[in-house]
Amino acid sequence: MLDRTIEISLLFDYYGELLTDKQKEIVELYYYQDLSLGEIAGNIKISRQGVYDHLNRAEETLKSYENKLKLAEKNKKNSQKIDKLIRVIKDSKNINNETKKNLLKRLQEINKYI
Amino acid sequence: MLDRTIEISLLFDYYGELLTDKQKEIVELYYYQDLSLGEIAGNIKISRQGVYDHLNRAEETLKSYENKLKLAEKNKKNSQKIDKLIRVIKDSKNINNETKKNLLKRLQEINKYI
Repeated sequence: MLDRTIEISLLFDYYGELLTDKQKEIVELYYYQDLSLGEIAGNIKISRQGVYDHLNRAEETLKSYENKLKLAEKNKKNSQKIDKLIRVIKDSKNINNETKKNLLKRLQEINKYI
Repeated sequence: MLDRTIEISLLFDYYGELLTDKQKEIVELYYYQDLSLGEIAGNIKISRQGVYDHLNRAEETLKSYENKLKLAEKNKKNSQKIDKLIRVIKDSKNINNETKKNLLKRLQEINKYI
């Protein structure tokens, strides 16, 4: 369940804007605010089955975009390359500390928005 | 026209997989192989108006995905930050040449897939 939560949250970060407003609302309540299907049903006044259906369709939509665009996969690889570069710089004996600090700050800034 | 070609080619790189097969084919013939609407019509045996409609819808689709996901905009910013970092490293007097070469190679590799 935790793996699924992490996966859907990650895909929601990338493709959330492609969901309907209702799907977005339900994904946020379920995955980010940790409400149960029954609680969400009570909150937004639809049946528990309705909540389940919206959630299911939202998850399928997110996965289908990732299958086509592979943003999460691609950005994970880029992020790993940047992490590796950060380690190379940190471990290097051929760069002085001031320069290291500058390079690392820039790389962390890039990694944050990748 | 050149601006439009560059814009659509860029968006096609990001979102091309979200188009229908027919739209993909027509975008490729028009923007990458530089065929005219009439030539494409002859090639794939539909009317010139049909080609125009497919192309129009494909462009609208690409733009609408960019409006929502802003991948081209976001990646342009990341790429500019990496270019800036490359310049900082090249100009630095506090990194020896061997280390520079290693860092630049890694950064160029990241920039290629961003």
